[in-house]
Amino acid sequence: MNLKGRVTIPTDMDIIEDTIRLSEQWGADAVRDCDGTDFPEELKDVGLKVYSTYYTTRKDNAWANANPDEIQQMYLMTPIYTAAADSLRIPLMKGLYKDMLTPNTRDDITRWWEVIDRSTGDVVPTADWHYDEAAGEVVLNTVPFHDYTVSFLAYIMWDPVHMYNAVVNDWKDVEHQITFDVRQPKTHAFTMERLRRFIQEHPYVNVLRFTTFFHQFTLVFDELAREKYVDWYGYSASVSPYILEQFEREMGYPFRPEYIIDQGYYNNQYRIPSREFQDFQAFQRREVAKIVKEMTDITHECGKEAMMFLGDHWIGTEPFMEEFRNVGLDAVVGSVGNGSTLRLISDIEGVSYTEARLLPYFFPDTFHEGGDPVKEAKVNWVTARRAILRKPVDRIGYGGYLKLTLDFPEFVDYVESVCNEFRELYDNVKGCVPYCVKRVAVLNCWGKMRAWGCHMVHHAIYFKQNYSYAGVIEALSGAPFDVRFISFADIKENPDILKDIDVLINVGDADTAHTGGEWWCDPQVSSAVKQFVYEGGGIIGIGEPSAHQANGHFFQLANVFGVEEERGFTLGYDKYNWDSHSHFITEDASGEIDFGEGKKNIYALEGTEVLVEREKEVQLAVHSFGNGRAVYISGLPYSFENSRLLYRAILWSTGDEQNLHRWFSTNYNVEVHAYIENRKYCVVNNTYEPQSTTVYLGDGTSFDLDLEANQIVWYTL
Amino acid sequence: MNLKGRVTIPTDMDIIEDTIRLSEQWGADAVRDCDGTDFPEELKDVGLKVYSTYYTTRKDNAWANANPDEIQQMYLMTPIYTAAADSLRIPLMKGLYKDMLTPNTRDDITRWWEVIDRSTGDVVPTADWHYDEAAGEVVLNTVPFHDYTVSFLAYIMWDPVHMYNAVVNDWKDVEHQITFDVRQPKTHAFTMERLRRFIQEHPYVNVLRFTTFFHQFTLVFDELAREKYVDWYGYSASVSPYILEQFEREMGYPFRPEYIIDQGYYNNQYRIPSREFQDFQAFQRREVAKIVKEMTDITHECGKEAMMFLGDHWIGTEPFMEEFRNVGLDAVVGSVGNGSTLRLISDIEGVSYTEARLLPYFFPDTFHEGGDPVKEAKVNWVTARRAILRKPVDRIGYGGYLKLTLDFPEFVDYVESVCNEFRELYDNVKGCVPYCVKRVAVLNCWGKMRAWGCHMVHHAIYFKQNYSYAGVIEALSGAPFDVRFISFADIKENPDILKDIDVLINVGDADTAHTGGEWWCDPQVSSAVKQFVYEGGGIIGIGEPSAHQANGHFFQLANVFGVEEERGFTLGYDKYNWDSHSHFITEDASGEIDFGEGKKNIYALEGTEVLVEREKEVQLAVHSFGNGRAVYISGLPYSFENSRLLYRAILWSTGDEQNLHRWFSTNYNVEVHAYIENRKYCVVNNTYEPQSTTVYLGDGTSFDLDLEANQIVWYTL
Repeated sequence: MNLKGRVTIPTDMDIIEDTIRLSEQWGADAVRDCDGTDFPEELKDVGLKVYSTYYTTRKDNAWANANPDEIQQMYLMTPIYTAAADSLRIPLMKGLYKDMLTPNTRDDITRWWEVIDRSTGDVVPTADWHYDEAAGEVVLNTVPFHDYTVSFLAYIMWDPVHMYNAVVNDWKDVEHQITFDVRQPKTHAFTMERLRRFIQEHPYVNVLRFTTFFHQFTLVFDELAREKYVDWYGYSASVSPYILEQFEREMGYPFRPEYIIDQGYYNNQYRIPSREFQDFQAFQRREVAKIVKEMTDITHECGKEAMMFLGDHWIGTEPFMEEFRNVGLDAVVGSVGNGSTLRLISDIEGVSYTEARLLPYFFPDTFHEGGDPVKEAKVNWVTARRAILRKPVDRIGYGGYLKLTLDFPEFVDYVESVCNEFRELYDNVKGCVPYCVKRVAVLNCWGKMRAWGCHMVHHAIYFKQNYSYAGVIEALSGAPFDVRFISFADIKENPDILKDIDVLINVGDADTAHTGGEWWCDPQVSSAVKQFVYEGGGIIGIGEPSAHQANGHFFQLANVFGVEEERGFTLGYDKYNWDSHSHFITEDASGEIDFGEGKKNIYALEGTEVLVEREKEVQLAVHSFGNGRAVYISGLPYSFENSRLLYRAILWSTGDEQNLHRWFSTNYNVEVHAYIENRKYCVVNNTYEPQSTTVYLGDGTSFDLDLEANQIVWYTL
Repeated sequence: MNLKGRVTIPTDMDIIEDTIRLSEQWGADAVRDCDGTDFPEELKDVGLKVYSTYYTTRKDNAWANANPDEIQQMYLMTPIYTAAADSLRIPLMKGLYKDMLTPNTRDDITRWWEVIDRSTGDVVPTADWHYDEAAGEVVLNTVPFHDYTVSFLAYIMWDPVHMYNAVVNDWKDVEHQITFDVRQPKTHAFTMERLRRFIQEHPYVNVLRFTTFFHQFTLVFDELAREKYVDWYGYSASVSPYILEQFEREMGYPFRPEYIIDQGYYNNQYRIPSREFQDFQAFQRREVAKIVKEMTDITHECGKEAMMFLGDHWIGTEPFMEEFRNVGLDAVVGSVGNGSTLRLISDIEGVSYTEARLLPYFFPDTFHEGGDPVKEAKVNWVTARRAILRKPVDRIGYGGYLKLTLDFPEFVDYVESVCNEFRELYDNVKGCVPYCVKRVAVLNCWGKMRAWGCHMVHHAIYFKQNYSYAGVIEALSGAPFDVRFISFADIKENPDILKDIDVLINVGDADTAHTGGEWWCDPQVSSAVKQFVYEGGGIIGIGEPSAHQANGHFFQLANVFGVEEERGFTLGYDKYNWDSHSHFITEDASGEIDFGEGKKNIYALEGTEVLVEREKEVQLAVHSFGNGRAVYISGLPYSFENSRLLYRAILWSTGDEQNLHRWFSTNYNVEVHAYIENRKYCVVNNTYEPQSTTVYLGDGTSFDLDLEANQIVWYTL
């Protein structure tokens, strides 16, 4: 077993000796600085590869202040105000952190701002409003009791991540880092020079870790410096008149602020994307890729590697999209909160290696007296490991203040074991496609662009309204399936893509981008999906799959799933199908199945087999449609038990129950992964307690096995 | 106290002496027959007014069989079938009780049937389908994997209510009564003659109790004779080519089956009514009124009274609509399941008297060994009494087999007490508008046409999906408010109607007729409501008031209610307003408030005062808007405690908290009603246990009072 390598350690000026000691204990082969730390030159020749964070868009307030016209901007919408008379004053900055944002009055506000009558959806003519800059209010003529908003551009005077780090770490008297816009001409030229200069001034650096490129995901704070709005996928801070004019020229139609504002929903991932927003995203991908390529070229020219941090200013890069393959990056690193976020990184193609930043950060919020960093680390590792076993990152690493770990020797030892376990795992798995039981496709409006990230709002953060759906993606991230993400547009363009798929999954709430909304009223799409199932495909719907009220259905695939949602319109229809049945899918479910938030008012149609019903609401049901099979689940938070339920549902939906006992553990807390090409397989205990199980190999033979807590056991075939 | 009168008793051939005895005990002054009973002529001269049921549309199979073209018809839609190839056979009668319905192939099916592609909403050209009558199937050319339905006309070969009575009472070998259509020419003429003949042949009858007029509410049974579809307000059985051609001529546009079929939803009350369906309802009201008038004229000409049973074939009469005032009826009688159904009858204007048929029916389902008819009667009476105290019916009565009561002497005695209590109540209340604390308007798409009946599906039957909303109407039915029902169209036509209202109520689920759906995108309507509140009006929203996804809101009145529903689109917005506050509205709420089904995912906006939050979902909140006040409630099933909560919400929303202690009982199980003109007031215990309370009079003075179970105490002012 390789005892060294594939691990990156953070450092700082005040912890040089310990860095060397810990890098040896953990087998680290790379060292890095972080936001708020500095790299000690003493470490440049100790045999560690040196990463340096590089902030493309900040940490040079002199430049930003000298070029205020090229400070980054974002689109913001005020709250919706109701006019009580024939005029109204709308304060722009109410509810916003004043030091972070300054309305852009430098550019023509009649062109770049938009006042909208939200009672009618109409744009208020520019003749009917003006901006009272002294008061910070837009003054407008109104129709009494109509609702109004102002969409406006503002300069980002304090980088949101820098502000976040400053607030969380209680940095005092820190100068607010202003973000400048590399997309604009002066800053563009300056940036390339600045990059060269940085590399020259830091000759010991081997890897430039870009944090990140040009546009911050949407992150805004309120007057109390509390987070006000966050969207890890948000594009609203990637705008400026300069690039929007370019967008207009390329697209051949006029830009409207509303394309970004989207009624105040900012095109978040739940919104069914408009054509214009998709055009804008594609435009950003193209333009961002060009400038990233310039920077990676310089990096390579100077003999360095270029690594991208998948976070902060990552907007426009979209690592799963075509443009990314040509940006010239050597590596991507990202923070890993769970299996889904691991695969956000490890599934990226076109780079030489990927790296996972494991949790916890070495920050005082965890590393304080009474803190339990070992527990956090265990949860994080065991969760990430599931996904790593399916598609490994090439490296792991940590971030934060290394010094904080010194008071936690047990943590230091646990990290050592993680590093060793990772290296062993990587050796066994590398270069090999693990055995996949089925080909599963998640169908939504975003397809591959939001692969693994669908149902995420703020990266891996929990939301009451999404965990019952995100749980499905999390289960898939470590399950033995070939998982892909396809969009309705993909099907419309080429229905044959369904021919390479065994099971379709449609998961989420009605009329969101996750389930598709009115896309189901496109008969090319709905017929293709029905045909897929009819001809023997499996389909699994979770939540309100295919739901959009039209043509006598709420679930547009009601005939396929055999269930519908009572929205009052069918109360007159008597419902007799309520008896629950035992079934292959629920055979491993002990006690009450956890459907999370579930769904109310679901009922089964005739001919459907109800598996779980609660208070006259169907939670789980199966239905045959032609030669295919459909499974309806009201919600499925992530748990080992639910992961098993999903596994069984996938097998049943493809009519393959008889092959359950192939590369299988009877105990659902334990999983089996096979790497046929490498002649390896492993059995892994995902829990923090010992487990016993029976392990089935690919030929159906089996043996009993006891595992320690968290244990992973490797076997050679 | 009057010991006789205002009570109707049922009878039958085999219970003549007991009828006389019980009529004396109960103080009955009228006697009646029922469906399945016959009137004994011996009772015609015992001093009782004689009611006779009169079945306008059935009980003459000879006529029906001789005129098969004038048998009643209904529109039906098959389930939605998916085509697997380029043709499809759709069986018409699958899922329907074969003896009840026969497809109408007598009329031109290419004109009166409709085959629809439900994947596109398009009508399939008649050239692409035909009916295989032998197989009972429509054969059609299809696009593979599109969905299809057939809308067709069928003759009603067994009157649904007759069938229901036969099934429930287990009648054996009964001839199926066919329903004939009085609207059609031959049957129309025949009916008038038949009515005259009936009156001649039954000279002892004083009151013709029409059961009812022409069109049965929608009621269909499946193959197993189980109820398949029911809508007490359904119009789908009021159709025939004959009247539809007349409709076309009058409206000037072509009729389409889809106007009735409505995607298979049959224009049920939850559907936001289409213009065409409203045209059709208005047409039916006009035409039904004309023929009813002919029948009441004959009745009067023959010296009899005409009474209508509000049930069975009542469709098209619509007692709250203008046309009804001129139909010439003397009385309306209806079944009373609760306070709301009581007011369905007692609020009818334009008749000399109204009568409530109290429950239980004297049917074997209640009157069997081990049955507890007294309990049912108590619940029914106490529930109805609340509403009677606000707007009394003029008479009460019972239905069914009187003989069945003989084994239940306690029941017979309880009915006596009810009759006496009713007569005393009536004497105290009659001719007087009770004191009303506030003017309250329920706002939905139906307005007065569905007054008290909104949220009803099958009369007063419980549905899981409606009790949390119907509870509000039930609470209002016995509350000291002037209650009216208005529609969005009413507001659009004349916003000034809001000037006579203190509090608006919008209750129900999103995108239903109850809350209004896209009506809220009509700025004339939304602005009028906002102005109403802004200028000091109160508004109470229950469930998903004003909800329709558009223009940056789901709750279109989010700014008024101060709450929104999280549908994924605003997950990015941080939500900090969760603390619950004590409040005037909840002061009488002990323990957990019952919100029934409630609503998930409601959150409060800034400035809103949350009163109850559960698991990060707001159940009850208040918000000021201009000079007005708004209350949001997630659901409000009927209970005495919730009735009090609604009372307090209404007072608070009008800013009138200081007048709480006027005509008020501190104990919410007890209510106080004042009849100022009659110089009376009463205190009534709505529960089945003794209660103690403090009673406040209109001048704010008070006294303590102990009441027996169910007791009502009358006082003179």
